[in-house]
Amino acid sequence: MTEYAVNGQRLWNNILELGKIGRGTDGVSRVSFSPADMEGRRWLLEKMQTAGLDAHIDHVGNVFGSIPSLSTKKILVGSHLDTVPNGGMFDGALGVLAALECAQTIKEHNVNLAYGIQVAAFSNEEGTQAGGGLFGSRYIAEGISEAEQESVNPVIKKAGLRGGRPAVDRQPFQPSEYVCYLELHIEQGGVLDSTKEHIGVVEGIVGIHNLDVAFKGVPNHAGTTPMAQRKDALLGAAALILEVPGTVLEYGSGFTVGTCGQVDVFPGARNVIPGHVRVSIEVRDLEPDIADRVLEALMEKAKNIARSRQLDVELTPVSKTPSAKMDSEIQAVILDAATSLGFKARLMPSGASHDAAVFAKYVPTAMIFVPSRHGISHSSDEWTEPEDCINGANVLLSTLLRLAT
Amino acid sequence: MTEYAVNGQRLWNNILELGKIGRGTDGVSRVSFSPADMEGRRWLLEKMQTAGLDAHIDHVGNVFGSIPSLSTKKILVGSHLDTVPNGGMFDGALGVLAALECAQTIKEHNVNLAYGIQVAAFSNEEGTQAGGGLFGSRYIAEGISEAEQESVNPVIKKAGLRGGRPAVDRQPFQPSEYVCYLELHIEQGGVLDSTKEHIGVVEGIVGIHNLDVAFKGVPNHAGTTPMAQRKDALLGAAALILEVPGTVLEYGSGFTVGTCGQVDVFPGARNVIPGHVRVSIEVRDLEPDIADRVLEALMEKAKNIARSRQLDVELTPVSKTPSAKMDSEIQAVILDAATSLGFKARLMPSGASHDAAVFAKYVPTAMIFVPSRHGISHSSDEWTEPEDCINGANVLLSTLLRLAT
Repeated sequence: MTEYAVNGQRLWNNILELGKIGRGTDGVSRVSFSPADMEGRRWLLEKMQTAGLDAHIDHVGNVFGSIPSLSTKKILVGSHLDTVPNGGMFDGALGVLAALECAQTIKEHNVNLAYGIQVAAFSNEEGTQAGGGLFGSRYIAEGISEAEQESVNPVIKKAGLRGGRPAVDRQPFQPSEYVCYLELHIEQGGVLDSTKEHIGVVEGIVGIHNLDVAFKGVPNHAGTTPMAQRKDALLGAAALILEVPGTVLEYGSGFTVGTCGQVDVFPGARNVIPGHVRVSIEVRDLEPDIADRVLEALMEKAKNIARSRQLDVELTPVSKTPSAKMDSEIQAVILDAATSLGFKARLMPSGASHDAAVFAKYVPTAMIFVPSRHGISHSSDEWTEPEDCINGANVLLSTLLRLAT
Repeated sequence: MTEYAVNGQRLWNNILELGKIGRGTDGVSRVSFSPADMEGRRWLLEKMQTAGLDAHIDHVGNVFGSIPSLSTKKILVGSHLDTVPNGGMFDGALGVLAALECAQTIKEHNVNLAYGIQVAAFSNEEGTQAGGGLFGSRYIAEGISEAEQESVNPVIKKAGLRGGRPAVDRQPFQPSEYVCYLELHIEQGGVLDSTKEHIGVVEGIVGIHNLDVAFKGVPNHAGTTPMAQRKDALLGAAALILEVPGTVLEYGSGFTVGTCGQVDVFPGARNVIPGHVRVSIEVRDLEPDIADRVLEALMEKAKNIARSRQLDVELTPVSKTPSAKMDSEIQAVILDAATSLGFKARLMPSGASHDAAVFAKYVPTAMIFVPSRHGISHSSDEWTEPEDCINGANVLLSTLLRLAT
């Protein structure tokens, strides 16, 4: 099989050019459906047309650019263009621009395709301004509920788009029309950056299990209550917070992560002993059983802490977002493509969610990661070296060609 | 010396009657200068007049009722009538009503006094609605700054009072006109309740040293950042919070208390590793050196925690309210009075602040504590048994008689 290569300079120029749209003093802000976000979409539409793709923007802002084939089946490849406020210029954008670059390269070489290729830039992946996240990909793959669609349409219409119809009023998505969904993305974590590997082949997108733990004591006067007579809910919460890393290590998979991101102290005055403290605990793993095992161990520890400190404890499961497994055959193709190109690659989970999590429910889906410097994303400090962007695009191209020819 | 006794039934009836003013579904709300607070003051004025005292309300809501004597010197005895929102019917009120009861008893027995007695109900002790706390006693003893007086006067005027002049425009307070200031108060802590003692003789009102500790790490993605790569500011904060009780025990006086009442987590999302956490630490003791020693030990521990967890730490002293020593000769008089009446009494610090803290700066000052059930105050659960209220009033009467005759 002939190996083609993307035009790395063109890809990097596009990253820089798109990165100027919505740039402020602190990072890039192309919040979904904002003027900057819409400017980015129109910019992409032109780039697609220039590349010779059959391009359009749909009613909710998704941008598509296609290379048709004789087959009715196509490979969908993309990511998103919107950012969080004060975000970076790689999260989402790299995946879209690399897909465009791959399609443009394929066009330029007149590669004979067994399947069509459809480049996609999904709208409102971040869900910052309206609706839940992964909006554009959910709109395509499974449809949006009437309530959510109604709540988001005013924002979409303000952006100059027609707005979407809820799932009940639309033609259902046909999984049989798709060979697979592919997405290149920055890792957003620091694994590849620290191991100095080039490519991550994503095994799956982790599930997210959220728990609230509330300790209850007695909210007494901080001056008049002797130390020995206190029932301080914050001491219980602090003891549990310190247990999290060790419990994740002991009961987790090695990839499991556990985080306390919120602490609410009531009444929250300097001079009142905390009577009620809520701590959020989030555990992520590819295997729901492992995430549950870690949370169960933490719940047991919370009960023991409460008992020994004469506190009450309330354990409230908040949510479980299921994990999404990536297609193992495509993982093997990506791994082989990366290795053939001379890159060091590793299998790894994705700790963040992506549009791929939506498509994985319906069609074979795979993701390619490239390094994030210091593992930082959603920040103006987000950075991926030009070489890493181009390496990722070449692995994506090679994977596309292996699957489409 | 003849021992007189207060009319316990009358005192208890007055406590219940005043406790109805401002009572809602959850406790008593006579927030300073509110209609309920003013109703309480007018109720007291009438009670004073009925008792034969020379009574008036001053321009900032302080209520005074006097028994004159041939001497120009007088004993000031009182507390406050205002409550926190949803407070109890003993905090402040007991001290005022017991002082009234003592004066009424003295009047009824035509006791020959060497000094006058002035019963006082200071306004705005809690400082809930406007101005700093201890407002009425500061107005009398040291005067209020122009800025604070201007900020509080609109609230005072809305309550139908003239409003006060700032210290610069008023006759200075003459300490030489006062023999001493006496105040009976509920303990608000659980010491007397747990030791089953009747009377606390207050040695001093503790000083309050406030410190803020801020740990800084890296606010990274909770999904993509492996456990080993995290710099989680909340783990530093939790470790420090757990050090507080042991450090207070090791470096404190035995009466020292230390409290973390506030925790602010930034950014405070379930799915972001805390990058910045602020913890408030308050330490109280009669001896400022001991409070400082405890805080210094905690600051050293905060630095060690930060170092071992690769975090930055910022230590910010917030405030130091000095302690107020009670007069040792009057303490001895109270102790003797209590013992003579057959009560079990103990010397103890006051962990809460009181109007007595203001007067202690200028005149010999002493306080008497009675038990608070379960150490609870500032709550509808605040309770002191009728017998304990009456015991306290009798110790106050006996002390007054020893000092005034």
